[in-house]
Amino acid sequence: MEREELFEKISVKNEKRIVLIVLDGLGGIPYLEGKTELEKAATPNLDRLAKEGSCGLSIPISYGITPGSGPAHLSLFGYDPLKYEIGRGVLEALGLGMEITKEDVAVRGNFATIESGIITDRRAGRIPTDMNRDLILLLSKNIDEINGVKVILKSGREHRFALLLRGKGLSDEVSDGDPQKEGLPQKFPEPLSNRGRKTAEIASKFVKLTEEILKDKRPANTVLLRGFSLYPELPSMERMFKLNPAAIATYPMYKGLARLVGMKILDSGEKVEDEIETLKSNWEKHDFFYFHVKKTDSYGEDGNFHKKVELIEKFDSLLPEILSLKPDVLVVTGDHSTPAKMKSHSWHPVPFLLKSDYSFDDGLRGFNERECKKGSLGIFHALDVMALMLANSQKLEKFGA
Amino acid sequence: MEREELFEKISVKNEKRIVLIVLDGLGGIPYLEGKTELEKAATPNLDRLAKEGSCGLSIPISYGITPGSGPAHLSLFGYDPLKYEIGRGVLEALGLGMEITKEDVAVRGNFATIESGIITDRRAGRIPTDMNRDLILLLSKNIDEINGVKVILKSGREHRFALLLRGKGLSDEVSDGDPQKEGLPQKFPEPLSNRGRKTAEIASKFVKLTEEILKDKRPANTVLLRGFSLYPELPSMERMFKLNPAAIATYPMYKGLARLVGMKILDSGEKVEDEIETLKSNWEKHDFFYFHVKKTDSYGEDGNFHKKVELIEKFDSLLPEILSLKPDVLVVTGDHSTPAKMKSHSWHPVPFLLKSDYSFDDGLRGFNERECKKGSLGIFHALDVMALMLANSQKLEKFGA
Repeated sequence: MEREELFEKISVKNEKRIVLIVLDGLGGIPYLEGKTELEKAATPNLDRLAKEGSCGLSIPISYGITPGSGPAHLSLFGYDPLKYEIGRGVLEALGLGMEITKEDVAVRGNFATIESGIITDRRAGRIPTDMNRDLILLLSKNIDEINGVKVILKSGREHRFALLLRGKGLSDEVSDGDPQKEGLPQKFPEPLSNRGRKTAEIASKFVKLTEEILKDKRPANTVLLRGFSLYPELPSMERMFKLNPAAIATYPMYKGLARLVGMKILDSGEKVEDEIETLKSNWEKHDFFYFHVKKTDSYGEDGNFHKKVELIEKFDSLLPEILSLKPDVLVVTGDHSTPAKMKSHSWHPVPFLLKSDYSFDDGLRGFNERECKKGSLGIFHALDVMALMLANSQKLEKFGA
Repeated sequence: MEREELFEKISVKNEKRIVLIVLDGLGGIPYLEGKTELEKAATPNLDRLAKEGSCGLSIPISYGITPGSGPAHLSLFGYDPLKYEIGRGVLEALGLGMEITKEDVAVRGNFATIESGIITDRRAGRIPTDMNRDLILLLSKNIDEINGVKVILKSGREHRFALLLRGKGLSDEVSDGDPQKEGLPQKFPEPLSNRGRKTAEIASKFVKLTEEILKDKRPANTVLLRGFSLYPELPSMERMFKLNPAAIATYPMYKGLARLVGMKILDSGEKVEDEIETLKSNWEKHDFFYFHVKKTDSYGEDGNFHKKVELIEKFDSLLPEILSLKPDVLVVTGDHSTPAKMKSHSWHPVPFLLKSDYSFDDGLRGFNERECKKGSLGIFHALDVMALMLANSQKLEKFGA
């Protein structure tokens, strides 16, 4: 029996509420004073939960695999990220807050520099984001549709943008229109199969149209298109887990990921305090809340150990407000590790804690990587997090008699 | 390579004896005085084994999944319960001690109440078991076969019974003949495919015949038939593991499960003492003994913490008699957890201990959930228990050169 079938079969609806708090990139490795960020941070509330609840370490994908945010979140949401791949174009568009439909092909774009047919700079000298916005505005004004297919553009940072082609009969079976190296001739998107023919033709037309419009805009006088991808078909959380889920997140990418699995996206403001207000005011309306805190990851990526520690401490100080809602199941974890020492995502297992009426009291001395290793949940796959949350809220019936 | 193929290839026969003791529903969660049943129980013999042997926690199916007895036992016997599904009808019939053959379709039945075509009580007011027996006797006398297919009936408790249809060309591709809710019109079993046509027809005829026979027996004046299922085809333990296995169990369901995988069912009496006598008198005849103690689960289901503790203590006091046989491999574990606090099966990992000449001495302070977590075996899948037992009795050859 497949996982999906099993959950559809045994999941049931009830009144109990689950809160899944994801501190992005939470995990760390020993760094300053030989401590991880969580070991350094003063977190009395998390420490108390680590004493009274069940802890462990979760592996986002598998040992040694460093995940991007997309796959790492899919795991936490109960979707096998090796089965449900999210294309690069879709992730880019989600990250920019675009609403993707099932009629779309999503594509990542770069502004680039071309000279006599040769790509001389794949990033157009990393033009300022403001200039990017002006160029996208210009392109949007001039290109509305191609061969009856709607063209939707959105600026990203520096040279990056996303493109949605919306219409019937589109396909992701199209190669990247990118020579990959500078100094090589321009490359147009090409069909990888008959089904990709229409999309490749439209995409190539789009490149030619932009070159006409941008001919005086050097260094941004062409575009490279990559990562053609369709909106992935995921069974909704409602269907698979019988949940009525909501997402509280401040960054577009995470809202987009949540929308992919059928969560309602709540208006969450900018700060953690705003997110907590959102949680409170929507408490009665949903039985599952995904609560995302972004900046732990951003500080990890910056290598800013102290700022990451500070943010963890700040979250800890706000945690009692969430606890006061008395969730039936509370989970605090990360989607992956982002050790400040590495300035990047990493493969290291992620501290995890769960508190419910049916959890063990692990009696740990704190909430961090080394203590969580001693917890009753052991080292386990993030893909099992959803089953644990559902079980602890009694939303799973017995399998077999 | 499939698991089955691997074991067939590397398993070998030898003189060593394995005893797998399953205390049904053994695992618990913190409850009275913050202790689990095992933490509360005084178990000097188990504690000594936890000091001298290897311990761990086993996951019956996967994190968060609460198993029924069928799937949980299949795991312990080395059969993936997600691959080998046992139908509801088969489990019911096994539970009532019926011998199922490969020509049978097994079905769960309810006596029910019908009024002018409407099912008004799906359980016929939970008629007394005695009345059920009388009705089954009456039906058995009057219905011997239908369309050349043999009809075999057996009473269960209150309104429940099992039905075997025995003959050629039967199929499990038949829908439940059950409106699921009261106040709805009667529903007959229907074929889910062409193959199910014959079975559905016979089953519907059976319902009509029972209604004629029971027309004056209100509230039990009809039957609902559900869970049409075939005898599952499992490779025998002899074939897969080269074992000559025997089962010592007092309840029909567990005897039935053991029979499914080809164990010899020994006459085991009623009490744990009887079961130990059975073990002793058959010691020379088998190299694998499955030894099942039922009531730990029953007391857990009743929420009777103290009785479960008492039974664990009683088992512990009898354990030296089993040890005196000097099994080469001794395992003590449960098939799943049944915390008295929850009054039901649960998903929590199950304490596990193994003692052999090749096990580690974990030096644990006792045999319980929290100590086992620290054991050398860690948290692992129950599906791996059989390989551990075979390995520790040197019944598995090296895989590959």
